[in-house]
Amino acid sequence: MKKLIKGGTIVTAADVYKGDILIEGETISAIGTDLEDQGAERIDAVGLYVFPGGIDPHTHLDMPFGGTTTKDDFETGTIAAAFGGTTTVIDFCLTSKGAPLREAVQTWHEKAQDRAVIDYGFHLMIGEINDEVLLELPGIIASEGITSLKVFMAYKNVFQADDSTLFRILLTAKEHGALVMVHAENGDVIDYLIAKALADGNTDPIYHARTRPPELEGEATGRAASLAALADSQLYVVHVTCAEAVGQIIEARSKGFRVFGETCPQYLVLDETCLEKPDFEGAKYVWSPPLRKKEHQEALWNALKSGQLQTVGSDQCSFDFKGQKELGRGDFSKIPNGGPTIEDRFTLLYSEGVRKGRISLNRFVDLIATQSAKLFGLFPRKGTIVVGSDADLVLFDPSVERTIRAAGHHMAVDYNAFEGMQVTGEPVSVLSRGQFVIRDKQFVGKAGDGQYLRRQRFAGTGPHAAESRGATVNR
Amino acid sequence: MKKLIKGGTIVTAADVYKGDILIEGETISAIGTDLEDQGAERIDAVGLYVFPGGIDPHTHLDMPFGGTTTKDDFETGTIAAAFGGTTTVIDFCLTSKGAPLREAVQTWHEKAQDRAVIDYGFHLMIGEINDEVLLELPGIIASEGITSLKVFMAYKNVFQADDSTLFRILLTAKEHGALVMVHAENGDVIDYLIAKALADGNTDPIYHARTRPPELEGEATGRAASLAALADSQLYVVHVTCAEAVGQIIEARSKGFRVFGETCPQYLVLDETCLEKPDFEGAKYVWSPPLRKKEHQEALWNALKSGQLQTVGSDQCSFDFKGQKELGRGDFSKIPNGGPTIEDRFTLLYSEGVRKGRISLNRFVDLIATQSAKLFGLFPRKGTIVVGSDADLVLFDPSVERTIRAAGHHMAVDYNAFEGMQVTGEPVSVLSRGQFVIRDKQFVGKAGDGQYLRRQRFAGTGPHAAESRGATVNR
Amino acid sequence: MKKLIKGGTIVTAADVYKGDILIEGETISAIGTDLEDQGAERIDAVGLYVFPGGIDPHTHLDMPFGGTTTKDDFETGTIAAAFGGTTTVIDFCLTSKGAPLREAVQTWHEKAQDRAVIDYGFHLMIGEINDEVLLELPGIIASEGITSLKVFMAYKNVFQADDSTLFRILLTAKEHGALVMVHAENGDVIDYLIAKALADGNTDPIYHARTRPPELEGEATGRAASLAALADSQLYVVHVTCAEAVGQIIEARSKGFRVFGETCPQYLVLDETCLEKPDFEGAKYVWSPPLRKKEHQEALWNALKSGQLQTVGSDQCSFDFKGQKELGRGDFSKIPNGGPTIEDRFTLLYSEGVRKGRISLNRFVDLIATQSAKLFGLFPRKGTIVVGSDADLVLFDPSVERTIRAAGHHMAVDYNAFEGMQVTGEPVSVLSRGQFVIRDKQFVGKAGDGQYLRRQRFAGTGPHAAESRGATVNR
Amino acid sequence: MKKLIKGGTIVTAADVYKGDILIEGETISAIGTDLEDQGAERIDAVGLYVFPGGIDPHTHLDMPFGGTTTKDDFETGTIAAAFGGTTTVIDFCLTSKGAPLREAVQTWHEKAQDRAVIDYGFHLMIGEINDEVLLELPGIIASEGITSLKVFMAYKNVFQADDSTLFRILLTAKEHGALVMVHAENGDVIDYLIAKALADGNTDPIYHARTRPPELEGEATGRAASLAALADSQLYVVHVTCAEAVGQIIEARSKGFRVFGETCPQYLVLDETCLEKPDFEGAKYVWSPPLRKKEHQEALWNALKSGQLQTVGSDQCSFDFKGQKELGRGDFSKIPNGGPTIEDRFTLLYSEGVRKGRISLNRFVDLIATQSAKLFGLFPRKGTIVVGSDADLVLFDPSVERTIRAAGHHMAVDYNAFEGMQVTGEPVSVLSRGQFVIRDKQFVGKAGDGQYLRRQRFAGTGPHAAESRGATVNR
Repeated sequence: MKKLIKGGTIVTAADVYKGDILIEGETISAIGTDLEDQGAERIDAVGLYVFPGGIDPHTHLDMPFGGTTTKDDFETGTIAAAFGGTTTVIDFCLTSKGAPLREAVQTWHEKAQDRAVIDYGFHLMIGEINDEVLLELPGIIASEGITSLKVFMAYKNVFQADDSTLFRILLTAKEHGALVMVHAENGDVIDYLIAKALADGNTDPIYHARTRPPELEGEATGRAASLAALADSQLYVVHVTCAEAVGQIIEARSKGFRVFGETCPQYLVLDETCLEKPDFEGAKYVWSPPLRKKEHQEALWNALKSGQLQTVGSDQCSFDFKGQKELGRGDFSKIPNGGPTIEDRFTLLYSEGVRKGRISLNRFVDLIATQSAKLFGLFPRKGTIVVGSDADLVLFDPSVERTIRAAGHHMAVDYNAFEGMQVTGEPVSVLSRGQFVIRDKQFVGKAGDGQYLRRQRFAGTGPHAAESRGATVNR
Repeated sequence: MKKLIKGGTIVTAADVYKGDILIEGETISAIGTDLEDQGAERIDAVGLYVFPGGIDPHTHLDMPFGGTTTKDDFETGTIAAAFGGTTTVIDFCLTSKGAPLREAVQTWHEKAQDRAVIDYGFHLMIGEINDEVLLELPGIIASEGITSLKVFMAYKNVFQADDSTLFRILLTAKEHGALVMVHAENGDVIDYLIAKALADGNTDPIYHARTRPPELEGEATGRAASLAALADSQLYVVHVTCAEAVGQIIEARSKGFRVFGETCPQYLVLDETCLEKPDFEGAKYVWSPPLRKKEHQEALWNALKSGQLQTVGSDQCSFDFKGQKELGRGDFSKIPNGGPTIEDRFTLLYSEGVRKGRISLNRFVDLIATQSAKLFGLFPRKGTIVVGSDADLVLFDPSVERTIRAAGHHMAVDYNAFEGMQVTGEPVSVLSRGQFVIRDKQFVGKAGDGQYLRRQRFAGTGPHAAESRGATVNR
Repeated sequence: MKKLIKGGTIVTAADVYKGDILIEGETISAIGTDLEDQGAERIDAVGLYVFPGGIDPHTHLDMPFGGTTTKDDFETGTIAAAFGGTTTVIDFCLTSKGAPLREAVQTWHEKAQDRAVIDYGFHLMIGEINDEVLLELPGIIASEGITSLKVFMAYKNVFQADDSTLFRILLTAKEHGALVMVHAENGDVIDYLIAKALADGNTDPIYHARTRPPELEGEATGRAASLAALADSQLYVVHVTCAEAVGQIIEARSKGFRVFGETCPQYLVLDETCLEKPDFEGAKYVWSPPLRKKEHQEALWNALKSGQLQTVGSDQCSFDFKGQKELGRGDFSKIPNGGPTIEDRFTLLYSEGVRKGRISLNRFVDLIATQSAKLFGLFPRKGTIVVGSDADLVLFDPSVERTIRAAGHHMAVDYNAFEGMQVTGEPVSVLSRGQFVIRDKQFVGKAGDGQYLRRQRFAGTGPHAAESRGATVNR
Repeated sequence: MKKLIKGGTIVTAADVYKGDILIEGETISAIGTDLEDQGAERIDAVGLYVFPGGIDPHTHLDMPFGGTTTKDDFETGTIAAAFGGTTTVIDFCLTSKGAPLREAVQTWHEKAQDRAVIDYGFHLMIGEINDEVLLELPGIIASEGITSLKVFMAYKNVFQADDSTLFRILLTAKEHGALVMVHAENGDVIDYLIAKALADGNTDPIYHARTRPPELEGEATGRAASLAALADSQLYVVHVTCAEAVGQIIEARSKGFRVFGETCPQYLVLDETCLEKPDFEGAKYVWSPPLRKKEHQEALWNALKSGQLQTVGSDQCSFDFKGQKELGRGDFSKIPNGGPTIEDRFTLLYSEGVRKGRISLNRFVDLIATQSAKLFGLFPRKGTIVVGSDADLVLFDPSVERTIRAAGHHMAVDYNAFEGMQVTGEPVSVLSRGQFVIRDKQFVGKAGDGQYLRRQRFAGTGPHAAESRGATVNR
């Protein structure tokens, strides 16, 4: 069955132009100025943008954390993602020290396979490097197509790896064509600051922010970049929040190092004052790293504009306020970290970025989809609109004005972090591999229709990689 | 008459994919995975890259300089450009203080209109700001579509404008949507250094480099960026050659300022030692700014890779060694500045950049075509491959190895600056608005077929500009 | 006649210790823990600091400016200086283009010789470099001991020199052992901004600040530092006011260049809002560069503390509010630039610096006296307290609290720029070459007692210079 | 018994002047231009510099390391120091995790008290922070006057503290007026690199350098500075060796943080190639951090000149080549780290610094003595020449030329790290508290004459501290 999307304005990371898109099966077969129907179902896109489906490179679905589990699983999470214009998620597969990596991967497959409504891949968290891990890892990278490895520099005694581990993972990643992702905060010092705050009776949510100052994110970011440079490897800093960290990334990139950075919508539009909301409501805004003072936002936007940060991920990690966030009443360190952001990432970046003149349409697509596809080995199958690519498309109405409310959202949680924000623009219909998942703002997909994505190795910047894979990250 | 380019690998600033391109008239009407002929002439592109035609944002054709005139005019120059994969040039229209701007534009139209074999536009040099200029300029920008203005900070008593003039042009450009281009060297100090060198009897070509040290380019670049920031205007620094200047551009961009930079192939592959060649042969390598020590090349490549420099222009400005460069025997300051680079720009960047693993294929296209189209108001008509755009295309064989030699080149000059260099890759066929200019390495175009390009105003980074023009520069 | 200062706390740039000082004639002959009288007049200094007399490296006494003349001449100016703890001033000798330098020097000698109550030297302003100047200058440096040359990058069409002139002066200074002082603001752009403001009807004093933004000081500072580095010469940036300029100086010094900086008390304690005072009172606060936003003060203090700025000069240049400042009513550009600061410089730096914990006592002495002596060739005759040095001493009561008021000051002008400020500390007695000028807060000196100071050449940092002159500047 | 030093040129951190010095008992009682004998022993210093005795802030005497013990103990070590112009050493007292701090201090007292020929103090190494340490530390600081605490970021599983420990020590130091000293290298990564090198069969001394690259020193220096800034505490980075670390220190200081740095003579005059000497001789040059490539030396000298590094310590830590360094044959990681430098520190800095025009005489004194006195709470008793201070003096002949040789040195080790170097200048006589230790190049002191120095708390930069202690560090 063919589909013909007529009259839309097609936007990629490089281009904006009017054209018709012919879909045959799961992929795009032709783009033309005035394509004939040829029996295809005709979909009217006049007045709409046609974007490549968003890629969310940073989600935590169905993830255990601090004695509870994130509220959204692969079904509710991917449905919400699709409503928001996202057609691919890459979720973090958590491993346990001592246990085989493959067990963790298997667990994650089980979480996802019957539930996901859009395509998905996995990053693999690495907590330690030992002979077993070194033996097992190359096989996982090859067979599972998991070409990105996550290391935590924070969460002492839980996830935190030491610098030696980080360095060895960087070396291993270089050898096997993987990209190292790092949560960059100095966990040692944070651990002390939290203990000190609690000992001093400072238990409110705002102390979550005060015990994780931006200096400690800047420090860890610089440290990770130094180790990546020394290892001649590739590094992706997740959820960059502050001027200090941005500065470290700019400095590393100016020297030619392969250092990349992601920020998240919450850091672009919310700030530290949210944590001071009364009645423990501040707990809704507990992310790590924490929300920062408002002045950091300018550094983030500048870095998105000038290409010093490459992606905007959601860091979706949702917990109900009731019963979950509330675990931290009287002890901010027990508040589950994270929030519901998977659904609003796409529109928030459009509305606050493009509409407010901070970034261009091309850059928007680059940040929301293309760079993630290139960095994580999905390009050009995902992340762009060209013939031969998967027909993952978003028909987007750029003019509709609406208010974000938990009341209407599709995530399983009992609040929305952006409650009350006015945004402009909304996905009208969303296709995944040629099939509607959202049609005219209604969910028409099916749990289990999402496919697991074996991803290609990190392309680097070499000519061969670029030629054979059609991918590049360095712009 | 339709043409169908079959089986090539299409490359844009964002994408690399296999596809067929259907051309109807002057533009691309469809791209498909397997398009049918439908009566179109079929052109085999299997094994070839299909690139958008190169845009050379910096040429000096038929230009008087120091009592002589550049050897290549709009006919030989654009033929050589086409052989080299370039389908659009933007040439600098020189004005004279005191004379109406329109006269200069008219002169340049006369130089170009019956000679150019590919499309062309003009930048306008501004030497002074006065009431007449302020009165005349908006009309020229509007009617001629000349949306870029060039200011010289060097060539004292010839082209050099003072800082007040530069600042006022920045303000005017902001108001009228133009982009200010600047030759950034401290002309005052250079003027003294040249006089001093000559007075000391230092007359050889190498003193051209020694009297224009990189510190003076860095200084002027920083100064221009400061004034652009203060004026909240847009600045494009032409022919960046050194680490000092790159550093200033990075710093300005990190603060969010609209500062852009161009380098040239000669600065990427040649160095200062060329000026020391015996028998006055060093004169062939006299550019301003001069070639630098080899270590500066790394800073330039890093900046191209990380997107801190946006374009690679040729700064084509050719003079014969015999009779022209020789004017400077015994006085380096009389050597006409410039060299023949229009033909090799495209392949050199591919060969030294992509093949040597310094930049990706996408970045190559971005640097050689797309960013120039976006910055100078030609996008998406030029600079990319999408339906609706001009069918300016280069069929490029990425595997052929050859040696650059004056013996085989198509420029009118008696030497080649890259004589003897081994390069990989060569344009096989080149189309301009759907017509072959080069076919199977033979020139099949016609003088006068090139059209003058009225260009759009500078898009800025605002959402409306981006939406209405499909252009953006900030990546 | 001998004097014995008993029981004071002696402070130098390096030391703080209790000791007695024996003065024989004009110089210090002994310092001891418990010196005997030996017929000397005994002066009790218990509870007081004994500082070396302040050196004010930046004054404009009896100077014509914009059709009027500074109110304080060498008599009132040096009396006020002495009351404030300053025993040496170095005044700027203004030259005229076309006229012999020697004439200007002679004029300045005539202004000073019968009036000064403390010792004085001259800096020489250089407005242009030509054969006459180059011929005359070495003789002046040698015979007059004028070893510092001032260049203006601002005041277009009045004092402003172009970059070539600045560069040549840097070369000449290097050759002859002089230090180049620079007023660093971009005069070209300022000239335009002033004209524009006036044309727009913006005539109030605040527009003085708005037409001289800090970006233009930062730019010019960076430019001057670049030229000094290229010339391998020495540069002293007068009246640094802003973070941008401080940043340029730090960068140059980090690379090992001989770049020094001075700030002034007004930039440390006043800010731009002063210019908005009603009833044209803002005119009292018109300096060039202008007062800045308050946040710049932190950058200045940090640079004083860490040694990145070396001196605090007054930039004394006083005009009555009535009749002089008022010349600018209705046109801020006609307000005479400058203010009365010679008297309060010393105490303000002590009170705001030492007492508020921003700098140490040693650093205070270094900034107020020692570094100026070293930079300007007066060390160790002036600027410190050691045997053999001139007995230029300040007995300072560190505990007295007082309010600065025009009512009680000794300058000839009708207002005080620091009116109403509370300060701690006050000079009680001041000696110049062993003679009291101020005794128990009363003036006991005599016009004409001040001597002209032939100064030594710039010492550089070489070992010989340091050994032969006992001077160094690089700490 | 009095002594009168006649006719020398007295040099302090601020001054250079001719004067006579009268010593009564242990201290200086008078300085004069022409003091009478008054029964004092007259010591001729004509043609000599009189410097304050050098303070070596970084020694390891009689220290166990890797199964052996440094060759020089407090007797041979301080004799050699005295020959070299040093009259005070501050040695590192090593503690053991789990054992009371006081035990370690007692051990160190026993090592020193009957052996030292010059005065000495102790820094205290802190390996962990726990309740016992927190309880014990304030008492030690107060009663022992040990006001500097050393933390290692390297030597994993031996001395290395984690970031939390470093941070807590910074907080404790701030509270109790101590200065935190840090060995800044990333021990985690170094540990891996060493294991990797050995596993790969790379066992020669040069691999000591290759497994401790400058990036890891730069990283750790930046990290320590970040933590100090966050703690609002004071930090002293020992043995800075490379441009990366210097850059981090400059950046921290520019922001106003209390970060100080020390380098050592070996990093100023030797380079990495020494480690490649044949026959295992490279082992003589094994320091941690290691010797660097020659180009780093310029960054160090610039930082000494501009005041961005404050001191030059020896890091004396001597082992015989035979029997000790040789422990590392076949395994560079077993080479005892360190070398004999206590004797030549003073003259090397004079000869390479002052004589070669890199630093001034004043700066020399500042680096070799004064700043250490100020930073470590010995000022003004030590570190300068003023009345009331200890008569710790060096009579230095600036013109003698000699060659450094193990054959003539006074350290107990069987080689000299600077063997064969030509230097200019030599201490002739050295006094400690008024008594000759070295007289006419002969040792005339006595083991046990050196006294233990209880040191003052860190002065900070506040006005009160400065006034009461006469000390400051921030220049």
